[in-house]
Amino acid sequence: MSLLPSLVSPTDGAFLLPETRDQPMHVGSLQLFSPPPGSDVHDLSEIYLAALGTAEIAPLFRKRLTRGVTTLGQWAWEEDAGIDLEHHVRHSSLPKPGRMRELLALCSRLHSTLLDRQRPLWEMHLIEGLEDGRFAVYTKIHHALLDGVSGLRLLERSLSTDPDARDTPMPFAARPDKRRRKGISANGLVSGGLHAAIDAVTLGPKVLGLVEQGLRHEGAVLPGQAPRSILNVPITGSRRFAGDAWELDRVRTVAKKAEATINDVVLAMSAGALRDYLIGLDALPDDSLVAMTPVSLRTDDSAEGNAVGAILCSLGTHLDDAEARLLHVRDSTRHAKASLKGLSQLQVTAISAGLMSPLVLNTVFGVPPVRPPFNLIISNVPGPRKPLYWNGARLDGMYPLSIPTAGQALNITCTSYDTQLQFGLTGCRRTLPHLQSMLVGLDAALTGLEKAFA
Amino acid sequence: MSLLPSLVSPTDGAFLLPETRDQPMHVGSLQLFSPPPGSDVHDLSEIYLAALGTAEIAPLFRKRLTRGVTTLGQWAWEEDAGIDLEHHVRHSSLPKPGRMRELLALCSRLHSTLLDRQRPLWEMHLIEGLEDGRFAVYTKIHHALLDGVSGLRLLERSLSTDPDARDTPMPFAARPDKRRRKGISANGLVSGGLHAAIDAVTLGPKVLGLVEQGLRHEGAVLPGQAPRSILNVPITGSRRFAGDAWELDRVRTVAKKAEATINDVVLAMSAGALRDYLIGLDALPDDSLVAMTPVSLRTDDSAEGNAVGAILCSLGTHLDDAEARLLHVRDSTRHAKASLKGLSQLQVTAISAGLMSPLVLNTVFGVPPVRPPFNLIISNVPGPRKPLYWNGARLDGMYPLSIPTAGQALNITCTSYDTQLQFGLTGCRRTLPHLQSMLVGLDAALTGLEKAFA
Repeated sequence: MSLLPSLVSPTDGAFLLPETRDQPMHVGSLQLFSPPPGSDVHDLSEIYLAALGTAEIAPLFRKRLTRGVTTLGQWAWEEDAGIDLEHHVRHSSLPKPGRMRELLALCSRLHSTLLDRQRPLWEMHLIEGLEDGRFAVYTKIHHALLDGVSGLRLLERSLSTDPDARDTPMPFAARPDKRRRKGISANGLVSGGLHAAIDAVTLGPKVLGLVEQGLRHEGAVLPGQAPRSILNVPITGSRRFAGDAWELDRVRTVAKKAEATINDVVLAMSAGALRDYLIGLDALPDDSLVAMTPVSLRTDDSAEGNAVGAILCSLGTHLDDAEARLLHVRDSTRHAKASLKGLSQLQVTAISAGLMSPLVLNTVFGVPPVRPPFNLIISNVPGPRKPLYWNGARLDGMYPLSIPTAGQALNITCTSYDTQLQFGLTGCRRTLPHLQSMLVGLDAALTGLEKAFA
Repeated sequence: MSLLPSLVSPTDGAFLLPETRDQPMHVGSLQLFSPPPGSDVHDLSEIYLAALGTAEIAPLFRKRLTRGVTTLGQWAWEEDAGIDLEHHVRHSSLPKPGRMRELLALCSRLHSTLLDRQRPLWEMHLIEGLEDGRFAVYTKIHHALLDGVSGLRLLERSLSTDPDARDTPMPFAARPDKRRRKGISANGLVSGGLHAAIDAVTLGPKVLGLVEQGLRHEGAVLPGQAPRSILNVPITGSRRFAGDAWELDRVRTVAKKAEATINDVVLAMSAGALRDYLIGLDALPDDSLVAMTPVSLRTDDSAEGNAVGAILCSLGTHLDDAEARLLHVRDSTRHAKASLKGLSQLQVTAISAGLMSPLVLNTVFGVPPVRPPFNLIISNVPGPRKPLYWNGARLDGMYPLSIPTAGQALNITCTSYDTQLQFGLTGCRRTLPHLQSMLVGLDAALTGLEKAFA
């Protein structure tokens, strides 16, 4: 334990200050596992007890906030000398019948509660009781510790590509070989573009001006500004989470035929689902919804590079035709990317920083703005292309849970894994009723695109 | 729905203002049920769906807080027009092996999270998965809606004494016959002494002075003031709850032989358990711990009357001998009651008000005080003497979960039901490790008293 607490950086602080009971600032991940053939994991007690027995905890998972005289009243990080793993690691079960419905309901609740600021800012829930014999792990990490993408990476990297590997450590366990793990630095942040994007926030108000300038520049290439919508209102503290997966090949085929990117198809699927959902609530704006989305600035759509640009994209939700919507999205992202290339790297980075911290935008535009700069964030985060295992249990899927904020009641994040594309929808439960119906909309939208580009 | 929101009374407000993420201000109840013979309630889906289908919700469970321009920035109550029962009523299951240990762990977690202030301030959790085939209901109500005693009464009164009765309504359902239910007024508060005690708080600062005066008066009859202890420190937001039951006849027999009251034996059991627990942590103060406890001012120890007096009692935790401790407690409560009788009814009521709202005491004495006025609150709330049923399921036990506050890290509440006395211990999880070991201490204390007074 270091004798002096280290002050929280302005970036981390930015995720602490705006946290209220209506706006928890943590990200989550829901992982689904199939047990190794022949084994029974209806009972996770053994795994739970093994987790509680973890001898050494990684530094990231040991640090907690402190504020007092010695830190001049500022938030600072210190090591939690009396870490209580039983508080952080929890064993849960689904009620009968133990379908995905019950799992999503439990995760919605777990994602709604605030993390305890007197302890390291994370929880990990081992969940048994799925009717199909699988088990699940829901992990919750405060944004001040890790952004969503880094959190997903961290969880991925604690898994193995070898189905026969055992003694796979818990994600929170200290690992002697961590230096060899490329991309995870000591404090767990992904190096490279995204890290730089976050650091850019620490540049302060100057950068905020650049974000605003960049966004207004983007706004200029759009047909119009984002319309008012029910997505852009104050929010409450309870969440509804919905998630499902589709074969990546289906998405890839549509993208190829439409001469679009995978990200364009993700946006068009979201657009179709949003249109259906808002029509159902009699709340579809006349003008197209506008999404903010991170894009790769590479031309080959490689999944390897970090997404270092953020653009505003008109989703074409005013268009009834699936084909027309995808082409509208494709053209919108093409224009936006072209204009992004005309900006300096600092401006691009600043816009990315804005994407990584929605509250920065709230600071710029007010909460919630009269005319929102965009209606929602849709992120597509490339993930591992090979199956991963946890002590022989196969990872079937990994769904991201994100952070709705005041004025941004819905977040759509999707991530690829193995042969699948997995969508996670996180919304304010009060503002967005029956959010799970958007899963039906996503499926209908993909099917519609397949027909349109057959 | 009324057009104008009604302002929150100063009493209710008193329970809203001090609420922080470290100090949630809700009370809880854990009810254990045995299903009717021959029926299987391993799966509570049907009961859950029936609960969600409740047509009309009682006014108390519909009102939510609001604050805005129309209420001049003050908290006010308004009806939640879009009440979402799925938010309030939740279906949960215990992980394997489904022992009391897993049930208490789940209730500890549920009791740790804040209620959503944008909605009516209650939650009800139907819990399946107990290994013995029983099921449980954990209910959580904000203190601004109901104090703990009234909450227990409300839950009791929603049950039936008839094992063959069916269609027993949910506690939150509106009931046409509620006028006939003695003691529950329209807003759900118990009439009589306790209600008056709460109302007394609304008298304002004058009463605070009386509470202080009354307490100092009480303090004068004690051998000394309450010692500093680990029970009287700042707290964190996570809770540990432990509960168990003992036969009331065992307690009654000891009381009779020692010429003491049942409440004296409850205090002596708590004293023995506290002594063992604090010795285990090497934290037993040299001076005796002091408890604040409500007592009946009647001489016949009738369970019927509301406890309208509150006294400070020296627990004798400095004494090693079980017999000596009970006699010490007995003499202490006799002296305190005698002195209470010398006070005016307003003073008595004011002290009771202090008991019902620990935070009022924090206001008086500072948080936490250098020398605490008392070390903990131990309440013994008489309950129903006949078995109760919920649609044929027999209520086996009902354990109260209370509110630790800054400077009061532990609360002991017990309630009688049928032939049993049920203890509920609610503590700050960080301040009080292994709180569940106090259950062993309570059992050892009762056995020790039985031997001493054989």
